[in-house]
Amino acid sequence: MLQQLVQRIVGELEAIPLIDPHTHINPHAPASKTLADILGYHYYTELAHSAGLPREQIEEPGIDPKEKVRRLVPKLADLDNTVQVSWLLEMCREFFGFDDDRITESNWEALYDGSAKQMAAGDWEQQVLRKSRLDAVFLTNDFDDPLTGFDTLRYVPCLRTDDLVFHLPRPETRERLAEATGVEPHSASDVRTAIGKLFGHFKRNGARACAISLPPEFEPGPVTTAAANDALHDAFTRCENPDSPFVLSRFVFWTIAEMCAEHGLPFDLMIGVNRRVYEGGVFQGQDLFDQRTSLILYRELFNAFPQVMFPISVLAQVSNQELVSYSWIFPNVVTNGHWWYSNIPAYIETDCRSRLQGVPRNKQIGYYSDMYKLEFALPKFAMYRRVLANVLAADFVVARGWSEERAVALGRQVLRGNVEQVFRC
Amino acid sequence: MLQQLVQRIVGELEAIPLIDPHTHINPHAPASKTLADILGYHYYTELAHSAGLPREQIEEPGIDPKEKVRRLVPKLADLDNTVQVSWLLEMCREFFGFDDDRITESNWEALYDGSAKQMAAGDWEQQVLRKSRLDAVFLTNDFDDPLTGFDTLRYVPCLRTDDLVFHLPRPETRERLAEATGVEPHSASDVRTAIGKLFGHFKRNGARACAISLPPEFEPGPVTTAAANDALHDAFTRCENPDSPFVLSRFVFWTIAEMCAEHGLPFDLMIGVNRRVYEGGVFQGQDLFDQRTSLILYRELFNAFPQVMFPISVLAQVSNQELVSYSWIFPNVVTNGHWWYSNIPAYIETDCRSRLQGVPRNKQIGYYSDMYKLEFALPKFAMYRRVLANVLAADFVVARGWSEERAVALGRQVLRGNVEQVFRC
Amino acid sequence: MLQQLVQRIVGELEAIPLIDPHTHINPHAPASKTLADILGYHYYTELAHSAGLPREQIEEPGIDPKEKVRRLVPKLADLDNTVQVSWLLEMCREFFGFDDDRITESNWEALYDGSAKQMAAGDWEQQVLRKSRLDAVFLTNDFDDPLTGFDTLRYVPCLRTDDLVFHLPRPETRERLAEATGVEPHSASDVRTAIGKLFGHFKRNGARACAISLPPEFEPGPVTTAAANDALHDAFTRCENPDSPFVLSRFVFWTIAEMCAEHGLPFDLMIGVNRRVYEGGVFQGQDLFDQRTSLILYRELFNAFPQVMFPISVLAQVSNQELVSYSWIFPNVVTNGHWWYSNIPAYIETDCRSRLQGVPRNKQIGYYSDMYKLEFALPKFAMYRRVLANVLAADFVVARGWSEERAVALGRQVLRGNVEQVFRC
Repeated sequence: MLQQLVQRIVGELEAIPLIDPHTHINPHAPASKTLADILGYHYYTELAHSAGLPREQIEEPGIDPKEKVRRLVPKLADLDNTVQVSWLLEMCREFFGFDDDRITESNWEALYDGSAKQMAAGDWEQQVLRKSRLDAVFLTNDFDDPLTGFDTLRYVPCLRTDDLVFHLPRPETRERLAEATGVEPHSASDVRTAIGKLFGHFKRNGARACAISLPPEFEPGPVTTAAANDALHDAFTRCENPDSPFVLSRFVFWTIAEMCAEHGLPFDLMIGVNRRVYEGGVFQGQDLFDQRTSLILYRELFNAFPQVMFPISVLAQVSNQELVSYSWIFPNVVTNGHWWYSNIPAYIETDCRSRLQGVPRNKQIGYYSDMYKLEFALPKFAMYRRVLANVLAADFVVARGWSEERAVALGRQVLRGNVEQVFRC
Repeated sequence: MLQQLVQRIVGELEAIPLIDPHTHINPHAPASKTLADILGYHYYTELAHSAGLPREQIEEPGIDPKEKVRRLVPKLADLDNTVQVSWLLEMCREFFGFDDDRITESNWEALYDGSAKQMAAGDWEQQVLRKSRLDAVFLTNDFDDPLTGFDTLRYVPCLRTDDLVFHLPRPETRERLAEATGVEPHSASDVRTAIGKLFGHFKRNGARACAISLPPEFEPGPVTTAAANDALHDAFTRCENPDSPFVLSRFVFWTIAEMCAEHGLPFDLMIGVNRRVYEGGVFQGQDLFDQRTSLILYRELFNAFPQVMFPISVLAQVSNQELVSYSWIFPNVVTNGHWWYSNIPAYIETDCRSRLQGVPRNKQIGYYSDMYKLEFALPKFAMYRRVLANVLAADFVVARGWSEERAVALGRQVLRGNVEQVFRC
Repeated sequence: MLQQLVQRIVGELEAIPLIDPHTHINPHAPASKTLADILGYHYYTELAHSAGLPREQIEEPGIDPKEKVRRLVPKLADLDNTVQVSWLLEMCREFFGFDDDRITESNWEALYDGSAKQMAAGDWEQQVLRKSRLDAVFLTNDFDDPLTGFDTLRYVPCLRTDDLVFHLPRPETRERLAEATGVEPHSASDVRTAIGKLFGHFKRNGARACAISLPPEFEPGPVTTAAANDALHDAFTRCENPDSPFVLSRFVFWTIAEMCAEHGLPFDLMIGVNRRVYEGGVFQGQDLFDQRTSLILYRELFNAFPQVMFPISVLAQVSNQELVSYSWIFPNVVTNGHWWYSNIPAYIETDCRSRLQGVPRNKQIGYYSDMYKLEFALPKFAMYRRVLANVLAADFVVARGWSEERAVALGRQVLRGNVEQVFRC
């Protein structure tokens, strides 16, 4: 009976068209062309590598897409327990009519060839969007992206700022910034001017958010102009002062927060990733984390920018209670999705329950796909909807006597309504 | 069938009269007078503020109680998912006969007026105590509280020591201490004498516990008399030695622990709060936490005072396993309730299960309300009893084949029996 | 219906013969002789002590086994909620035909005498192995264990290295090392030679793993020969340089990792224990932990030894997500069991779900008993199988539509198959 209730709620939630508020979609090639685009997703390559497949086989330069899939498929047998492989099967079932319960060495080739034919259709992208009920997806744009050649209402620009905050000491970053803005970043004032120009460019092209991923130890704070100038000077002269990169990071980050205030953009913070922990790992499968982090590091930021909304993702699941609590107290802190290593049902369920029990309903963005190819929105949102439906059924309809309609309305708000409200889209 | 079992256990647990071992009740005005006393609870004002209501509207000086409620009610629509608002509805249903499923702009005024009439009854306090099955509630008394004018068997004094430990450098704290004890705290010896007098006063008036809330980085330890004298001297002369306040805090804390040993009082530790993190927040809605804390910081304390019981509350839910483990090992460490940001069913359930599976049953205080007004005990204990009944049913009756009677007896012990035993009341 | 499914899966899992990959069994006296061997397990003595029984009564020198049990039994009434006491009852039921629901002052003596008779049987050890379906159990051998006088296929040697890594500055450790290897460890080169001899000895005697428990702040890394020589010199001359023990620990640890690579042995890491936190505690009931640790401390180790498998146990349950994530990324990191304070169903369930959802199935060792006496494998593995069956039923059969056979095959792999594969036994 509870299962029937859950099924009815899932059905209602499935009817809600989605805006996906964080993806890595390339708007010039949003959908997959072959199964290699799907199996090439870092979740599969890193799991296959972790289970024993040498990186050299996965990442052989110039490897043919079909050959890549041929090499990965046998390894799926070691991964079929993972929720990531369950997404793969759901995609193959829903998009390509696959109806075996596993992808194996004996059935993969038919799947590969058949799916390639379907993906070759001129309207494949539209088919995927329609079947996935996707109205719009947010992008992750480099700061020097021209933002041309695509429909910015469907593919919503979002200014990704990791390079600016963490890599300004690199000559190539400064060159890209100068090229994009016409401003050489020699002084704090130059940097501010250049970043202001980037914001203007993104705003003119319909950007709805600024975003960044941050290491666990990062602590934002204001930096004096003098200190910023010194740090910039060190960067340009390759001086060895080991503090300069940190000062510069803080300065650029704080300047970006000021621009978010000025231009009315939310600032998505994705907190807690250590980059390149496993240097022998596959592409995008090298990053991990240190659970010893705290939102207390963001205390000064949240106080200084009451007019900026901060949708926050945490990488460590143990950070979720802090996120619940900070969102419960700070008007400008919003919970955002279930990121990366926390994006499995066991963790989503705890996060979802605690957020729905403790955070105002208008301050929760339930889910984003983080996808690189459009096909992934379908199984990922489906996973989230099932967890959400279970929580709505058990904690609201059963435990609190809510009507199904009321529970579904709460689900609609965290799935869709708050995306529109927080990002004004 | 499991649900029926749970309902029967809930029914049995509801029949158990309660002693609430931690509240902020004012014994001279324990019950509410209007709905504003209830909706003025910081949980509602801070959530309403977080959801978008300006602090100035909530905390306008001299605002009429009814006007305050009028301003808060529309914001409840953004908060109706929270367990805190479910408490509000349960109070209105149980005490005031409210039977809509929401409090809205169209029904609040009748509720306000009707409830005000009921609360005006001369025996309202008695009605609430009776309906909530409350035999006694522990208070949180300032160290200079005269403890007169109320029934100390019903409203049990408890010496709160935050001001002494953390604010002795403030002249007003030292003046209050001098006034309460007749001792000017110029030396370590004076401080010890003064604190001893406070303990005598509280013990004579039926105090059952000493209590304090502590920041995440606090680490208790003994301080030499010479170091304490130096730190006190610095405090009196407003010397700028930045370590002095820490030394003084440790000295006063350790002295209080010694007095707990001498006077046979348990020392309630509430571990992990950072004060005034969000300075723009509403009254009592400014505090948050840093999950990076550990009970290892209390290692020396627990070893030094084997004769003192330490009922411990942790603010970060991730600290619960340490609390389970330290209670499992140290005879003088007792688990105590589910504090503040951990006081939602999603977290209570995990905490409750792990404690019942790992900690001796005579070392667990299941719950306290932390309430400011008497009406809150009813829905808060009801929430806890429902979680407890679910755990007793699933983990003991079903999984371990216990009889219902045996499971209920375990529930009775953590709900009531251990309060009597630990606090000797 | 779900319960029937769970029961069927439990039944299938019970049929799988076990290899227990981590115990403290003494191969010369593997089974218990009286109930005192069972109730003397530190879980019971520490819980009884925590619940109020003085250590002096439990650990009185020369106490008769029966008298020891007589003293502990009354305290069981305060512990009967714990999962540890549920193991005790399950052992008494399964091995000794006990059929009361509690062990009390009025029934313990008959149980004691009856069980003693059964344990006196010449084939008691075989009976326990058979009834528990134990094919083999791994030991925890001191580095200077001669490894003679027992069947090393049944009782598999495992080189425990805590003493070498953390206690080499103690003269008695160095003497033991010299005696075992014929090498006085005066220089880094001597230490390496001596450790190499130990590995040779263990390998020749069928060792399948090297193991160590580590404090939360330990961070492995390479040490130069010069620094290692200096640290050793300090150790021999009792020099007070406070860094030397840390340098020496790191040097020995790194050397052991090199030997694991050379000799093809997995290196079991048990991460997070602080020793002797409660010095007044009973034997083996003095250790606790600091949850503030991270696998990021092992970054350099995992990168430096891709050819060594690291089965990892974490003491803090909050470390489980890091363990899931590091195992998902690093080919040489494997999840291993549920250790000590995390070994209760409430925590095992979360750990088990997240691992099965996120880690390749060939990289998970489900459980080990950590037992001191053979009788404990039965109730401990039974506890794990029940949790595992619940997760397989709910997350795989129900949620993902797997067949029961497929779910059971996954259970078989984490219970048994991966032990064989990782430890090559």
